[in-house]
Amino acid sequence: MKAFYGDLRLGILGGGQLGRMLIQQAINYNVTIKVLDPDREAPCRRLCNEFIVGSLSDYETVYNFGKKVDMLTIEIEKVNVDALEQLEKEGVVVYPQSRIIRLIQDKGLQKQFFKENEIPTAEFQIISSAQQLKESQFPFPYIQKLRRDGYDGKGVYKVLDESYLAGAFTEPSLVERMIDFEKEIAVIVARNENGEVKTFPLVEMEFNPQANLVEFLISPSTLPFEVQQEAESIAKKIAETLNIVGLLAVEMFLDKNGQILVNELAPRPHNSGHQSIEGNVVSQFEQHLRAIFNQPLGETACLSNAIMVNVLGEAGYEGPAVYQGIEKILKCAGVYVHLYGKALTKPFRKMGHVTIIDNDREKAIEKARYVQETLKVIA
Amino acid sequence: MKAFYGDLRLGILGGGQLGRMLIQQAINYNVTIKVLDPDREAPCRRLCNEFIVGSLSDYETVYNFGKKVDMLTIEIEKVNVDALEQLEKEGVVVYPQSRIIRLIQDKGLQKQFFKENEIPTAEFQIISSAQQLKESQFPFPYIQKLRRDGYDGKGVYKVLDESYLAGAFTEPSLVERMIDFEKEIAVIVARNENGEVKTFPLVEMEFNPQANLVEFLISPSTLPFEVQQEAESIAKKIAETLNIVGLLAVEMFLDKNGQILVNELAPRPHNSGHQSIEGNVVSQFEQHLRAIFNQPLGETACLSNAIMVNVLGEAGYEGPAVYQGIEKILKCAGVYVHLYGKALTKPFRKMGHVTIIDNDREKAIEKARYVQETLKVIA
Repeated sequence: MKAFYGDLRLGILGGGQLGRMLIQQAINYNVTIKVLDPDREAPCRRLCNEFIVGSLSDYETVYNFGKKVDMLTIEIEKVNVDALEQLEKEGVVVYPQSRIIRLIQDKGLQKQFFKENEIPTAEFQIISSAQQLKESQFPFPYIQKLRRDGYDGKGVYKVLDESYLAGAFTEPSLVERMIDFEKEIAVIVARNENGEVKTFPLVEMEFNPQANLVEFLISPSTLPFEVQQEAESIAKKIAETLNIVGLLAVEMFLDKNGQILVNELAPRPHNSGHQSIEGNVVSQFEQHLRAIFNQPLGETACLSNAIMVNVLGEAGYEGPAVYQGIEKILKCAGVYVHLYGKALTKPFRKMGHVTIIDNDREKAIEKARYVQETLKVIA
Repeated sequence: MKAFYGDLRLGILGGGQLGRMLIQQAINYNVTIKVLDPDREAPCRRLCNEFIVGSLSDYETVYNFGKKVDMLTIEIEKVNVDALEQLEKEGVVVYPQSRIIRLIQDKGLQKQFFKENEIPTAEFQIISSAQQLKESQFPFPYIQKLRRDGYDGKGVYKVLDESYLAGAFTEPSLVERMIDFEKEIAVIVARNENGEVKTFPLVEMEFNPQANLVEFLISPSTLPFEVQQEAESIAKKIAETLNIVGLLAVEMFLDKNGQILVNELAPRPHNSGHQSIEGNVVSQFEQHLRAIFNQPLGETACLSNAIMVNVLGEAGYEGPAVYQGIEKILKCAGVYVHLYGKALTKPFRKMGHVTIIDNDREKAIEKARYVQETLKVIA
């Protein structure tokens, strides 16, 4: 095996912000990095040894890219898995493994995996056609999710009663009981080739009930110790059952009865782990590198309270981004700005994030609200 | 003025590890960066928007490079200052200002500046020739330093008695009383255009008496509060007297009588501030960016004890670098590896650094010794 600091050529499928922050960390280890992304203006374009513009879903493109590296990883699941399988057969190391990406690409297979392995999750049914949906006796209200390619709220449809059926997806999907949840929570877990497994402490998402949007991510959680233990042990169980190598983000609901239900998996660094850059002993990006390079996993303990605020493009603005209020928020101690290198803003586009660190949790939340009110991405 | 996050083109003179870590931080602000360095394999080569190979001491090269950017900064002082002066006249912002770089390039002018401004420093005399050195009545033993181009111990000669005079430098130099110091200490201070000034807490260098080398940098200092206050106020006074915009590293001696004497200045990020990446609320690199972009300076308080160990090429090895022991040190919690992207090692070449964070100071020092014994750069 080539040494990870230099000789080894790491390919990243996807050149977005997750790849960008992964590279920022990989610089510390001299990792030689090639990136494939369809967008020639992708956030990683200037930060790697080679940036290749090409489709992530095209077999030939992914295969040819993979032949030029020793190890492949992803920062987005929507990639051509057939090419990855072939590359694995030909000796390219693919972490996370192609079979895991294939499983996670399909929300139907993901749910079946949960069921088979007794991972708690909302009741569901696999639906192959509009006809089958109508015939299903699944109790209203429920959520319909496309099996493939859903992303950031896309591919999700609420079926409150029979009258909603007309607008439902006709593609392969699954229907799922609507969870009246108390809280959205997440655990990031890592596993290396040696089988070492480590979780990051549980984080909570704070909802804005008016906008029905995740406003903040708060780390660490103040939920009861048993809930934290339970969530972390579910994440560990999934990582071990999958035998994943790399990072796995496990998004969960805590329902009103205090039961944890797994919502979705992402086999890569994830929005719910950004606060770890400043808030934990190692960041999720460092941990992903350690996992895929089969290095000892890092200590994940929280250093402080950390709140992560997504910086989204303001509604009504489209064009070259202007970051209004940045000077004001830099006046606050413990405020860390991460812009993603996207030249153009559009409504709700993820343009960056800000992490707020404070030993006083209430103060951290107060600062986070100030950041959210003050920093606006306009054009 | 263009916005620093994107429109503004920042040029960095020098593409070494200091530039590399500055870029790692600047990524968070989308800064458009061009780098000039004579070495086509310099650490920054893959991390900037444009990397230009060229001499830093050649007027035309520096001038032409500067004409393509809106703002220039440095990561090494040895640059053509005449070109910077001309660029300033033509409207390019140069931070730190060319007059400060000119002053600091010349150890004779530096010492005179200290004297004129009542900054405590070791007694000295400016020497222009071998003849003048012989005729000087400067009391033995003393140190002779070349006025220009000394670096990392080069350009320094000990004159213990008359018999040493034969080997002395004949170029313009200064002679300086040999300080019997208790400790080498340093303060990094930043000043922005608005005149805001902030110091980082005092750090100490731990000497290995056998090797006569700085082994560790320890942050924060545990010297008496008055010493810390005094050192920080000296650093502030220098930054304010110079009206510098940017970062200034102030290296000092604490002598056996408890007196602080300023040794040397560096108007840029500095080896004595690397621990700030993990050990302080903001890092020296973030602070330098905030200073030159006239943003509010960041909070500099220490988050924890931090020890910085330089990772030097092992004596006796030259060639493609191998980092022996890296897996072992990654097993320790709170150990942060920073490699500088140099393909080839040679004896004592700075190949990287490791920062160790621990709330228990003794434990941090123990871990630092372990890192130093364990991590070896061989070929």
